Amino acid sequence: MDKNYAALLSGPRQLKIVEWPIPNISSNEVLIKMDSVGICGSDVKKYSTYKNGVIAVKKPMIMGHEGAGVVVKVGAEVRNVKVGDRVAIEPTQPCRSCEYCKTGKYNMCVDGRYCSSSGNDGNLCTYYKHVADFVHKIPDNLTLEEGAAVQPLAVAIHACNRAGVKLGSEVVILGAGPIGVLCAMTARAMGATKILITDIIQARLDVAKEMGVDFTLLVDERWSDEETVDRIVRLLGCRPTITIDACAFPSPQRVALLVTRTCGVVLIVGISSESLTQLPLSDAMLREVDIRGSHRIANTYPAALAAVSSGIINLKPLITHHFPLRQAQAALEQAKAGEGMKIIIRVQD
Amino acid sequence: MDKNYAALLSGPRQLKIVEWPIPNISSNEVLIKMDSVGICGSDVKKYSTYKNGVIAVKKPMIMGHEGAGVVVKVGAEVRNVKVGDRVAIEPTQPCRSCEYCKTGKYNMCVDGRYCSSSGNDGNLCTYYKHVADFVHKIPDNLTLEEGAAVQPLAVAIHACNRAGVKLGSEVVILGAGPIGVLCAMTARAMGATKILITDIIQARLDVAKEMGVDFTLLVDERWSDEETVDRIVRLLGCRPTITIDACAFPSPQRVALLVTRTCGVVLIVGISSESLTQLPLSDAMLREVDIRGSHRIANTYPAALAAVSSGIINLKPLITHHFPLRQAQAALEQAKAGEGMKIIIRVQD
Amino acid sequence: MDKNYAALLSGPRQLKIVEWPIPNISSNEVLIKMDSVGICGSDVKKYSTYKNGVIAVKKPMIMGHEGAGVVVKVGAEVRNVKVGDRVAIEPTQPCRSCEYCKTGKYNMCVDGRYCSSSGNDGNLCTYYKHVADFVHKIPDNLTLEEGAAVQPLAVAIHACNRAGVKLGSEVVILGAGPIGVLCAMTARAMGATKILITDIIQARLDVAKEMGVDFTLLVDERWSDEETVDRIVRLLGCRPTITIDACAFPSPQRVALLVTRTCGVVLIVGISSESLTQLPLSDAMLREVDIRGSHRIANTYPAALAAVSSGIINLKPLITHHFPLRQAQAALEQAKAGEGMKIIIRVQD
Amino acid sequence: MDKNYAALLSGPRQLKIVEWPIPNISSNEVLIKMDSVGICGSDVKKYSTYKNGVIAVKKPMIMGHEGAGVVVKVGAEVRNVKVGDRVAIEPTQPCRSCEYCKTGKYNMCVDGRYCSSSGNDGNLCTYYKHVADFVHKIPDNLTLEEGAAVQPLAVAIHACNRAGVKLGSEVVILGAGPIGVLCAMTARAMGATKILITDIIQARLDVAKEMGVDFTLLVDERWSDEETVDRIVRLLGCRPTITIDACAFPSPQRVALLVTRTCGVVLIVGISSESLTQLPLSDAMLREVDIRGSHRIANTYPAALAAVSSGIINLKPLITHHFPLRQAQAALEQAKAGEGMKIIIRVQD
Repeated sequence: MDKNYAALLSGPRQLKIVEWPIPNISSNEVLIKMDSVGICGSDVKKYSTYKNGVIAVKKPMIMGHEGAGVVVKVGAEVRNVKVGDRVAIEPTQPCRSCEYCKTGKYNMCVDGRYCSSSGNDGNLCTYYKHVADFVHKIPDNLTLEEGAAVQPLAVAIHACNRAGVKLGSEVVILGAGPIGVLCAMTARAMGATKILITDIIQARLDVAKEMGVDFTLLVDERWSDEETVDRIVRLLGCRPTITIDACAFPSPQRVALLVTRTCGVVLIVGISSESLTQLPLSDAMLREVDIRGSHRIANTYPAALAAVSSGIINLKPLITHHFPLRQAQAALEQAKAGEGMKIIIRVQD
Repeated sequence: MDKNYAALLSGPRQLKIVEWPIPNISSNEVLIKMDSVGICGSDVKKYSTYKNGVIAVKKPMIMGHEGAGVVVKVGAEVRNVKVGDRVAIEPTQPCRSCEYCKTGKYNMCVDGRYCSSSGNDGNLCTYYKHVADFVHKIPDNLTLEEGAAVQPLAVAIHACNRAGVKLGSEVVILGAGPIGVLCAMTARAMGATKILITDIIQARLDVAKEMGVDFTLLVDERWSDEETVDRIVRLLGCRPTITIDACAFPSPQRVALLVTRTCGVVLIVGISSESLTQLPLSDAMLREVDIRGSHRIANTYPAALAAVSSGIINLKPLITHHFPLRQAQAALEQAKAGEGMKIIIRVQD
Repeated sequence: MDKNYAALLSGPRQLKIVEWPIPNISSNEVLIKMDSVGICGSDVKKYSTYKNGVIAVKKPMIMGHEGAGVVVKVGAEVRNVKVGDRVAIEPTQPCRSCEYCKTGKYNMCVDGRYCSSSGNDGNLCTYYKHVADFVHKIPDNLTLEEGAAVQPLAVAIHACNRAGVKLGSEVVILGAGPIGVLCAMTARAMGATKILITDIIQARLDVAKEMGVDFTLLVDERWSDEETVDRIVRLLGCRPTITIDACAFPSPQRVALLVTRTCGVVLIVGISSESLTQLPLSDAMLREVDIRGSHRIANTYPAALAAVSSGIINLKPLITHHFPLRQAQAALEQAKAGEGMKIIIRVQD
Repeated sequence: MDKNYAALLSGPRQLKIVEWPIPNISSNEVLIKMDSVGICGSDVKKYSTYKNGVIAVKKPMIMGHEGAGVVVKVGAEVRNVKVGDRVAIEPTQPCRSCEYCKTGKYNMCVDGRYCSSSGNDGNLCTYYKHVADFVHKIPDNLTLEEGAAVQPLAVAIHACNRAGVKLGSEVVILGAGPIGVLCAMTARAMGATKILITDIIQARLDVAKEMGVDFTLLVDERWSDEETVDRIVRLLGCRPTITIDACAFPSPQRVALLVTRTCGVVLIVGISSESLTQLPLSDAMLREVDIRGSHRIANTYPAALAAVSSGIINLKPLITHHFPLRQAQAALEQAKAGEGMKIIIRVQD
């Protein structure tokens, strides 16, 4: 076995490729030779600020949580995968004992270890070990980089599950980053009959349009919230039954509450730093508009893999850039610049 | 048939008992000789300000929406009640044709006529007509004034349905007015195993305690929200799975979001005037705490009547004051003073 | 206005085109010049046996319940459509007052009048009147015959709603008649990633395959239920999470219970005559497989029209035959022969 | 530490108290000095027939799955309980990795080890080890034998959760054994306003009546199903919204389907041996009556303990007999005779 190299973050914009021990596996773990790892908005934040939301990163940490690779070793008790299997890594290891794990909401596990978060190393490295039942066999007709991109899709599916998208839903998505666009694709796959997406960058809207979103709205930051609401309603032809806020910053929440139809749902995904929001809550509450959050992934990897494999969701147009592992920092700088959609690091290049 | 007298509101604190025509009924309506009408917080607001939320009352309006009486005439097509039946009046007449009515959410009907609201007269009068299928026969073991008090109970049941109270729920209720206390009783009837209620008036907490609430907390307005949260958690012994805000003003919403357990629900009932709230929304969203509103009544009268009839919920301790119709203004002034819980006007006295 | 002709059923295989009075409309009704009416399995049964399930048809009845046409007159209170609008007719007029209507389940209304059922005339005629809020404007990009075919689609959507199809569902459908095939298309639109359909007629499976079903199984009636189950599982690659029985006769229910995955759902749609079934209920109950029925339509017309208009569901391949009104009996004989899928009668030809 | 004695079943009606090794615990396990173990209908079947449903018991097995005791040793990683804690034992150890465990339905885990089932020993012994997170601290105001009786209560709560009992439900329960009576008490705690229970033994109905069931019906086995249905409806005053079959044999399922109200639920709990049932399925499906099973326990121990601790549910009247461990066989013979309700074996006597 060759050496293990890892992308170690040790301070703001301090990312180095370092040699790292190849991990030993336990009886319920597998060792994976990593192939592809995607970059996500939260990676950019950690890289830029050395903070995880409001909490400072405490010690140098290997990045990466959107990964796929090939199994090279399995523990004695592992039954679900075998050496040679191509696998997508669900980047968590929940405690399996708390009230959230036992009730199927392992994304809320307080003791869970999530890749590249709260002191847990990620999988942007050559060799990575993971608990076997949180790696998922990639169907034969998917590439490994599609397998990596299944992670944000699984996040989007959890968000759309929480939002309750169904056949006939009319959906507005605020924010056309990868999560916003994947929410749009997921909503379509669940039967949304009208989808409108907004952003402040035209290039992102162009990608969204290409991927089948019905309406796009380039938001002018000088507009009042009321003006934005009005333009959304005119373009969509109605108020949305579901509004998904995928902006990762608080201001669009007011638009979301105002625009959503009576008895509808406002779903907030990918929120980041804590901040207070002035909200017209009374009106939303009287109209029984629900406000729901969505955090990470709970039981959506199987549906995500099946959706891509069956052709219901096409991830290929989402992947716009590639970098080799040794250029991980350049990849993060590119992501920080806001250009392109999903950037994949090819670990073995 | 004797004359019809009605409590007509014609300006702020301008309430007079006037003679009023006895209404003619259509084939699907009934004429009711009113017996008891309860006073609610929204009545006090309309009486004090001559406003309905933010909208001014446009023309003099008969008050009353928590009423019960005896059927004295039925239209030709009426089948569900007959002359002589004692009935509780569900104070709405929805359009039955909009998307909300057709899907069982008639409380969201935009064209619905709700008693003593948006230009529709109420039932604080001697004779009142109503559409037959929204009057409900009162079981023999209930008094007519209990029949009137079923209206706020039906509001509380709708709120607890929306909150998803179930066996084992640990519930905090902010605000020990009639709706708050009825939410507590409903939550207990649905299996809540721990209930804590807060208020700023000790007398209200005393009534709540008498009615079986497990914990009461007298909130000092000088406390910070964080301090209130801390005291609730210590008294309850845990964070609540459900927090019901029954305060009818916005400030407690921040406490509600902060105190509620991960994956729990914040339910807001009885909100009044529009106002902006600064909310720690990010934290609640990451913890997948849902925020839901509840407005009026949808299909909960049958359960409310059955719950009182079966003894599961006892409304008697809630009713603290009585007034005759001619003293309706005194009743409203009493309610405005915040003393007592439910005030009933006995129309026939 | 020209004359009104109607397809009157007066006995087993006794169908005649007769002249019929043009109906007068009430203030909440519309008069529709009919264009297209589909033939359904239940029409064939009524036509063949002069029975509605187990109950004999009591008096001659105009047939037809899958209809679309153009509004030619509107009542004084009608707001949702106007003269000249092309409309799809939701073939029911529920009572709007019973517990089912009030809770959004108007398909369960006992007093509802359903076209061509229980003594109510249908819409296989030149002029037909209907209550306005149960006619739906047809989007511009749909033909009138697609508008007619939206009726069985709305049935299929109600069935899939009841079954709980979602992104990633693996669905088996027993019976590839129009309802079975429309359930398949609906399940795909809701995100089902694998769909297998069975039938005993290869031609039906060929249509299903063309319309995008993943797997088809020609069932040999000599197979034991266990053998059928085994072949389904091998072809699908797993047990289904949802099995929809669209056979309209009881025998496949045993297969459905046996084949469905633990915690899955068996949904039975379009059942007809009462009959006793010997079922392995214990095993299904221990594995918490739910058994649910689905009857007619509740609030699914808007989603059905939107799904066809947005291109998510394509009804065109389903429509295989056309007849003019004067050949209505030939159309029913053709349907009875089991050839083709959806047969449309063009009323104006 | 003293010796370990266990009730070992080695054939039909072959039960002996034998000396048994005191188990060693792993880091996530606890050792419990057993105090009280309840006898359940399934124990009687295993004892009488040496079969577990249709499958023969393969090797001698320690009985017992309704147990409570005191923690005497904890593994290194155990945090939720400590030595000296009184605990109720949730009698399962699921795999935590399968799709059912991950989605919160660990009662469906195929690889789970359930006490006294499929080759796994039970807890009718002096010392028993269990995985720590499936033992639950007993509140101070409960006795240990109430802690043991929480197990069937947790089964009943899971059944009522699956049935969807809510405030205002009108519930019929077929079978007044311990599970039936506990379902009645749970349904009441969830807000059922009318509860009727049936049995063929008057003594059981008397206990049910004492515990607060509203109506009891002694079923005469000569009645036709239709006659039974008719008597239930007359006594209850309506058809039930929910019917729970707790008879553990198949024949009442026909009554359940016939009697349940349109859109209601038939819930089948505690079914045993496989058998075919002739069911009027068509009628139930057309009326959208759901048929659901319930198996064991999923996440209901916390609510069960809280319900008893808060006084919402009183288990004391249910416990009718006590035996010491050395008379375990006599206890089982007593249970087999059908006399009494819950029989508790006091292990330390």
